[in-house]
Amino acid sequence: MTVAIQGEAGSFSHEAALRLLGARIRVQSCQRFEDVFRTLQEGSADAAVIPIENTLHGSVHENYDHLLHFDHRIVAELNLRIVHNLIVCPGVRFRDIRRVFSHPVALNQCLRFLGAHPDWERVPFYDTAGSVKMLLEERLADAGAIASAVSAEIYGGRILRRSIEDDRQNYTRFFLLRRPDQPPLKLKEQGKKGWKTSIVFSTRNQPGSLFRALSAFALRDLSLTKIESRPLRGRPWEYLFYVDFLGNVEDERVKRALGHLEELCDLLRVFGCYRA
Amino acid sequence: MTVAIQGEAGSFSHEAALRLLGARIRVQSCQRFEDVFRTLQEGSADAAVIPIENTLHGSVHENYDHLLHFDHRIVAELNLRIVHNLIVCPGVRFRDIRRVFSHPVALNQCLRFLGAHPDWERVPFYDTAGSVKMLLEERLADAGAIASAVSAEIYGGRILRRSIEDDRQNYTRFFLLRRPDQPPLKLKEQGKKGWKTSIVFSTRNQPGSLFRALSAFALRDLSLTKIESRPLRGRPWEYLFYVDFLGNVEDERVKRALGHLEELCDLLRVFGCYRA
Repeated sequence: MTVAIQGEAGSFSHEAALRLLGARIRVQSCQRFEDVFRTLQEGSADAAVIPIENTLHGSVHENYDHLLHFDHRIVAELNLRIVHNLIVCPGVRFRDIRRVFSHPVALNQCLRFLGAHPDWERVPFYDTAGSVKMLLEERLADAGAIASAVSAEIYGGRILRRSIEDDRQNYTRFFLLRRPDQPPLKLKEQGKKGWKTSIVFSTRNQPGSLFRALSAFALRDLSLTKIESRPLRGRPWEYLFYVDFLGNVEDERVKRALGHLEELCDLLRVFGCYRA
Repeated sequence: MTVAIQGEAGSFSHEAALRLLGARIRVQSCQRFEDVFRTLQEGSADAAVIPIENTLHGSVHENYDHLLHFDHRIVAELNLRIVHNLIVCPGVRFRDIRRVFSHPVALNQCLRFLGAHPDWERVPFYDTAGSVKMLLEERLADAGAIASAVSAEIYGGRILRRSIEDDRQNYTRFFLLRRPDQPPLKLKEQGKKGWKTSIVFSTRNQPGSLFRALSAFALRDLSLTKIESRPLRGRPWEYLFYVDFLGNVEDERVKRALGHLEELCDLLRVFGCYRA
């Protein structure tokens, strides 16, 4: 099974894919998020794994836009704690380190650890896992990289320090995507807290229209877990709303809520229904 | 009067500042948005102008976070249509052009125009106005830059083609910020459509809590113009909501709505009340 991800093998998306689908997958590394969606659409991959939000940085807004423009289904979600590790080439000791490579966001998430070593140069790199790959390819003897444990395993690096991130409340939520015509997948790990459904809708530009749209859920005791707004292209100052709520599209209550919402909205699409 | 902006003089923030405050201002160029907020806080600037949302790309989420962490007031808003121009050094002709410099986002917003000149090299630069500044400093005779009309005026460039952007529905909304202790400003240009108020609140993590919070507005016929969610740090999967609504904080109806909202929320702050 081939799974499209953004970034190099060993990235956090790869880690999420392994947790969702098990060790026997092959990942197809794509440069941009749009390429991940296209690779799945064109059939060169059997599934795709994308990050959708992070508890420190917020939503990956670009991926919300791609969900709308491509016709994929969300078949699972996974919350992954982001654990950063200091990785070196085998044989390199802690005291040999003079430079540390990683993606700027990862460097910024390990300021306490890096602050204890002010003599180290911090070198921004295009990708966390990519920095481990480069370290091992170039056999750098004076450098470390900050990345996932999976990346150390894949490229043959050695983890010198585990869990060096500043904030342990740093989670990324991933979606597993499939094409609408594909059969259901057997998942290795999935939520056990009932079901979640992800939709997008646009309201008419009238006072109180978002409130009325949300009443479709509130009046049926359906609980929203996330709402995200994105601009509607060509209609300045109007918005699309991406909503996740607890419930299964097969439930009568959810069917009625979506029917009610359809009455109130110009656009309504269901992206998927999956275990929460 | 000194106005802090992000980016070089001649940027769209500069254009917004001129429209809001007139030609007699001095802009203080800052590298990052955080520096803009800090420059105002420390008193090195009398005001600040920041972009908050764009009709193609969505919100500038980072600035929502800064609004929360600094204690500034929003005293005005301005919607500016983003007009891109092809700018060259005086004496350079259209047929001399071999390279075009600009910020990658601006290059991407002029694909139709650039597509008609496939032989031109597109060179990404750190800033739109910065590319005009560089062009004139280096006296490049084979290059153009894509930037605002204001930048041509400031650096002495010549506009060869006006309004080369693909999408004329490309607007950026700017906020004019002041410190809470500063007196009201006389504005050159401001809305005439009544008043708008910007707030942030966090709801308790309970089913229907966002719906109940929005009822404080809907039940009083107060119209929301924007809602934006941001993650709450340290409380994974909980959110802050940034809301703009039509109304003045001095109106009895708005006072009651904010009082009602306070009952329902853990946090409520008013960022400002200004002409819409």
